[in-house]
Amino acid sequence: MVKIAVLGYGTVGSGVVQVLNTNQELIDKKSGTEVRVKYVLDLRDFPGDPIQDKIVHDFNVILNDPEVQVVVEVMGGLKPAYDFTKAALEAGKSVCTSNKELVAAHGSELLDIARSKNVNYLFEASCGGGIPIIRPLNSSLTADDIDEISGILNGTTNYILTEMTEKGADFADALKEAQELGYAERNPEADVEGYDPCRKIAILSSLAYGKTVHYEDVYTEGITKVSPEDILYAKKLKMAVKLLASGHKVTNGDKTNYYAMVAPFLVDKHHPLYSVNGVFNAVFVHGNMLGDAMFYGSGAGSLPTASAVVGDVVDAVRHGNRNISIFWDSEKLELSPNDTATRPFFLRVPASRKEEAEKLFNAEKTITIDTLPNEVGIVTGILTEKEFADRSETFGDVISRIRINQ
Amino acid sequence: MVKIAVLGYGTVGSGVVQVLNTNQELIDKKSGTEVRVKYVLDLRDFPGDPIQDKIVHDFNVILNDPEVQVVVEVMGGLKPAYDFTKAALEAGKSVCTSNKELVAAHGSELLDIARSKNVNYLFEASCGGGIPIIRPLNSSLTADDIDEISGILNGTTNYILTEMTEKGADFADALKEAQELGYAERNPEADVEGYDPCRKIAILSSLAYGKTVHYEDVYTEGITKVSPEDILYAKKLKMAVKLLASGHKVTNGDKTNYYAMVAPFLVDKHHPLYSVNGVFNAVFVHGNMLGDAMFYGSGAGSLPTASAVVGDVVDAVRHGNRNISIFWDSEKLELSPNDTATRPFFLRVPASRKEEAEKLFNAEKTITIDTLPNEVGIVTGILTEKEFADRSETFGDVISRIRINQ
Repeated sequence: MVKIAVLGYGTVGSGVVQVLNTNQELIDKKSGTEVRVKYVLDLRDFPGDPIQDKIVHDFNVILNDPEVQVVVEVMGGLKPAYDFTKAALEAGKSVCTSNKELVAAHGSELLDIARSKNVNYLFEASCGGGIPIIRPLNSSLTADDIDEISGILNGTTNYILTEMTEKGADFADALKEAQELGYAERNPEADVEGYDPCRKIAILSSLAYGKTVHYEDVYTEGITKVSPEDILYAKKLKMAVKLLASGHKVTNGDKTNYYAMVAPFLVDKHHPLYSVNGVFNAVFVHGNMLGDAMFYGSGAGSLPTASAVVGDVVDAVRHGNRNISIFWDSEKLELSPNDTATRPFFLRVPASRKEEAEKLFNAEKTITIDTLPNEVGIVTGILTEKEFADRSETFGDVISRIRINQ
Repeated sequence: MVKIAVLGYGTVGSGVVQVLNTNQELIDKKSGTEVRVKYVLDLRDFPGDPIQDKIVHDFNVILNDPEVQVVVEVMGGLKPAYDFTKAALEAGKSVCTSNKELVAAHGSELLDIARSKNVNYLFEASCGGGIPIIRPLNSSLTADDIDEISGILNGTTNYILTEMTEKGADFADALKEAQELGYAERNPEADVEGYDPCRKIAILSSLAYGKTVHYEDVYTEGITKVSPEDILYAKKLKMAVKLLASGHKVTNGDKTNYYAMVAPFLVDKHHPLYSVNGVFNAVFVHGNMLGDAMFYGSGAGSLPTASAVVGDVVDAVRHGNRNISIFWDSEKLELSPNDTATRPFFLRVPASRKEEAEKLFNAEKTITIDTLPNEVGIVTGILTEKEFADRSETFGDVISRIRINQ
């Protein structure tokens, strides 16, 4: 039998207990032994809850109990999660987590400690909730040189953008609806400003490229400026506006540039991410041998996220005191300045300055919307971010702009 | 250094050599050692090919060479692949394969031998080409009770159905085009009659449910009867016709029924499989905790399939003489008779008998197409397969029918 401790009895923590109880027989079989919760760490008590007699308030009870072999850290945040995780790993216990902040900030360090102690630090649930993506990246796509990993990694913003697209709602109304339905928090900043997917793409890019992408280096732009008018143009272009978090590797001759970014993008109808709607998440991967692949599912929610955490627990139990190789070096991956990234852009300009804008931005296509007679929409040729920004400044009259995914 | 042997230098075998050469540095790093091809077994010689001096015609050279630790079996078919695989495993060599016929016919037996010898039999490439699905099923979705696994598992038929949908082509023309483009073989029977996805769903269902699904027990219907008229109705219903291979687990009280089937289905616009077009494949999984998940990518082709095979080679090398637990018992999974499966159906009947048909089939919806004035399309209520078949026989005048995916 393997005893585990759950740190934090919130949304994910209670989900973990529920998954373990509901599928106990199956999980025991796949683990090769009985897996049982011995402690739940929380500041609160839960009188009447079936786990009430497992609640402890002092982490040292868990740390000093040699029977606890796997610790589930689902507290979120850096403090005290970082100290607890480090102490658990150093005590020779494996740790499974959904904590994207901690993995993004200290992932490679914690992996090193796990390796040195022959245990595991597993974090499948940190990116894309229940979607298996960390393990496939680490164990399945090992024959491929991955040149792109792009995802819809935040359900709240994808729900808002889907509502804006399907109902013509504006951002504020769609956000309010998302809050009423419990899909967005009262303070929605981490979602709508892109801070949440920024952590996740830092983790995924680090795994795809094997070195550490610092999330502070990832250019991040949220969806607060996306308007219903932008979406009208997107529809006319047979595209959808999606908040993409993406990592790219671009090789020109001997020189390899790495880019990472979170921003709204226009995604073409034929791209698999186009159809990912509502609160669903998906991660698109392109490998030099594999071509396109995509992983789709529930990116958040108590049970889907808990399912991924418990999947990690099963893996930790199966591996016992054997470290699973995860390629994520502590060396910093130097991202190239975003200025040098190239792509087409979409922009809206006053109708009166149509020809001037077409020339300045190397227009590939100009479109108009009947209900917006005073403006035109332009799809530019391939430009660097800097060229586009400079020309926009020169032009002076850009109503809005969205990047186009290639 | 680990030496490997490749059995069969056809489409996938040459892809395996190409993947190993192109991404050699990365593959060595992920394997933790150098991985090199020592032999390629083929009946032919390949003068001028870089591998010409590695060609052998006698499998015993490979079998008796203790330096060969991993054998890649990409010959296809049962003979002599079965004998070679068994002999290699018994000699303590791991085997990685893309051979769906062999895995479907002898998977659990070969896994047992691998386990007894502390080596591995890995077959990620046997279902869905380059799409990671076997390893996620086996190592990631371990906390879930999987009640559905459904896939678009054949690129040829998906290409044909996509062409019929986008261009209004009929089956024969779309097949001809697929053959000209090399997406369909000159003898297309294994694809268009569903024999290929039948093998694949037998494998996936066996892994999802842990016992052996015999592919001979899987009810299989191809796409040869799907007509352009059927597709007009599908579009009007905002659905798409897809050849689905699916395994279901249906629990009613104490009784659990397992079903497996390959047949054309109408798939709703909001289902993630709806948007999987052309030669792409995808596998949809529903778990009791995870909810919906989908894995998408290139289901065939030399390099994507080879990428999955080489991913298995890396895993085999990493694990050395440690068996990876794969839950697939040799005990036969008794499938329930297809007759008892329940679902809605779509059928076309003469317009003159509309009311009669609506009553007989518990119609939920009746639709008409302007260009087909002499008939109507009916979406039935939930019926068992037997009820639908019996009523169709009673009615006697059904123009066509397609199952509806739920």
